[in-house]
Amino acid sequence: MRPVAIDALGGDHAPGVAVAGAVAAARELASPIVLVGQEEAIRSELRKHRLSGLPVGVHHAAEVVTMDDNPVEAMRRKRGSSIHVGLELVRSGEVGAFVSAGNSGAVMASAVRVLGRLPGVGRPAIAVELPSRSHPVTLLDAGANVDPKPEHLIEFAVMGDVIGRTLRGIPSPRIGIVSNGEEPSKGTEATRLADRALRRMPLSYVGYVEGRDLMAGKVDVAVTDGFTGNVILKTIEGFGSFLFEALRKTSRSNVLTMFGFLCARGAFKKLHGLVDHEAVGGAPLVGVNGVTIIAHGGSSPRAIQNAIRVGAEAAAADIPGRILEALNTASAPGR
Amino acid sequence: MRPVAIDALGGDHAPGVAVAGAVAAARELASPIVLVGQEEAIRSELRKHRLSGLPVGVHHAAEVVTMDDNPVEAMRRKRGSSIHVGLELVRSGEVGAFVSAGNSGAVMASAVRVLGRLPGVGRPAIAVELPSRSHPVTLLDAGANVDPKPEHLIEFAVMGDVIGRTLRGIPSPRIGIVSNGEEPSKGTEATRLADRALRRMPLSYVGYVEGRDLMAGKVDVAVTDGFTGNVILKTIEGFGSFLFEALRKTSRSNVLTMFGFLCARGAFKKLHGLVDHEAVGGAPLVGVNGVTIIAHGGSSPRAIQNAIRVGAEAAAADIPGRILEALNTASAPGR
Repeated sequence: MRPVAIDALGGDHAPGVAVAGAVAAARELASPIVLVGQEEAIRSELRKHRLSGLPVGVHHAAEVVTMDDNPVEAMRRKRGSSIHVGLELVRSGEVGAFVSAGNSGAVMASAVRVLGRLPGVGRPAIAVELPSRSHPVTLLDAGANVDPKPEHLIEFAVMGDVIGRTLRGIPSPRIGIVSNGEEPSKGTEATRLADRALRRMPLSYVGYVEGRDLMAGKVDVAVTDGFTGNVILKTIEGFGSFLFEALRKTSRSNVLTMFGFLCARGAFKKLHGLVDHEAVGGAPLVGVNGVTIIAHGGSSPRAIQNAIRVGAEAAAADIPGRILEALNTASAPGR
Repeated sequence: MRPVAIDALGGDHAPGVAVAGAVAAARELASPIVLVGQEEAIRSELRKHRLSGLPVGVHHAAEVVTMDDNPVEAMRRKRGSSIHVGLELVRSGEVGAFVSAGNSGAVMASAVRVLGRLPGVGRPAIAVELPSRSHPVTLLDAGANVDPKPEHLIEFAVMGDVIGRTLRGIPSPRIGIVSNGEEPSKGTEATRLADRALRRMPLSYVGYVEGRDLMAGKVDVAVTDGFTGNVILKTIEGFGSFLFEALRKTSRSNVLTMFGFLCARGAFKKLHGLVDHEAVGGAPLVGVNGVTIIAHGGSSPRAIQNAIRVGAEAAAADIPGRILEALNTASAPGR
């Protein structure tokens, strides 16, 4: 098992959170972890943990990409950044995956530059996991491409199919395109063209799905543009906080209610776990030639730990290789 | 107070649900209600209720637009439909508003044909109400226009401002454009152009808002295209059902939890009320020359009753007149 590299300088509470998450991941996965960033700062953070033989290494990178940095500028100028250096480790094969909770635009731009796109991929996409009634649903693109063309939506479907089969273990993932109605006449011009093309492809394509179907377990993979995907993801996030805050408030409305909530607190914890984005932690950037995992800027150590697990799994499953294979099959003559 | 007309033939359980909702609304509002549809069927439904002097009338319309009818075809060919006849009553001034839970595409197409667009409006929009931390948020467009141009998004902002000031009683509604990030560089070409134009207009425009801000009370009006708006609305609907179903399931996991839920059931009812779309019932179609309220196809009598109340309020506030005024002000030279 190749090591996983983690951006020690990315995220709101770097390097403390990244180091704590890396140590926890090393303990859980028994896989080597490489912390990429300013060596001294990392070493001083590491001294706060009991490492006792855990395979946690450090790879020095001096420069920091901040959340305010322009992604393209950062990609071009900050060649010594933890993002650039971490991605170089993936490209050279020294590590199997790179995880970052830093400036996600810069991670995407740099991943395309350093790793390159896979042949046949026009636009890489961010593949997030949504909770659902029966099993997790893969939504892509969750924010990489604001205005994809029909052929890019088709690529997303093929890449989502690979994620479903490998990371989620679904033999033939049901795929849908997110739309404003189920009839083929609905949607945008791009979704209508992609919808027609996907019907003829060797995938379990079910047609359009609506917002309310996403969490109803109707599909395993939901394909959409990065604008809509981002809005969906953040609407769910916001609606979840809204409901749980309202729940907390009403739970204190009177003594009987407080008592009731106390008795049922196990159930609430379980419920909260369902919509807990930290449990997943990281979203693979698919379509580039190497495993890159994008984590939330506000990640906790637990979220980082889980993102590292996603990275290790994606590397072990060779997601980039499987996507390349799938794209070749999809475009093979005679199909 | 002018009567409100309700489509007795629209919705999944017509005419029973429409009649029950109309009777309840007449009782609540003490305003005359006109049921539009097949007279005999309506009269036979009315006999199931105690009317005792309630101002509920019937206006005959023989044809039915089904949910499967093509909206444009129905608009053109079914001139005797309850939708067409109901909208004619608005146009002639006989009623102040028309409410329908029928084929919403047909209601929109027919409203534009029969009532006409207000001068200065390129695209009418559906204005829905979302729950939020502090007060309801108006989201538009929730599904009328899949691919609006920047000038249409600007119209939506102006119309949303009117809804905020009149129906929601907010003196200077804060308006935002839904986007995939807060920076002005984010969004689509259409949102970026609209964003720049709105900054120069005499509105309380706050810039881009993300999905997670919608229910955080950051804005009073959220402007978006009908594709994204529809996906947002239905994602919230689906996520709400998902969470409440999960809550029901976990509530039965053991005796202590069941007991806890029993004690706190008042709090859950209150919470459910927060995300209960029936409490609003209907969404105004703004930008046409007359009040038209679009209700959910699966509306209950209570949802219809509430949609009729929205119609009565919109008519009393003269929403179309106020929008016309606002559009004239916004485009007046020298502003």
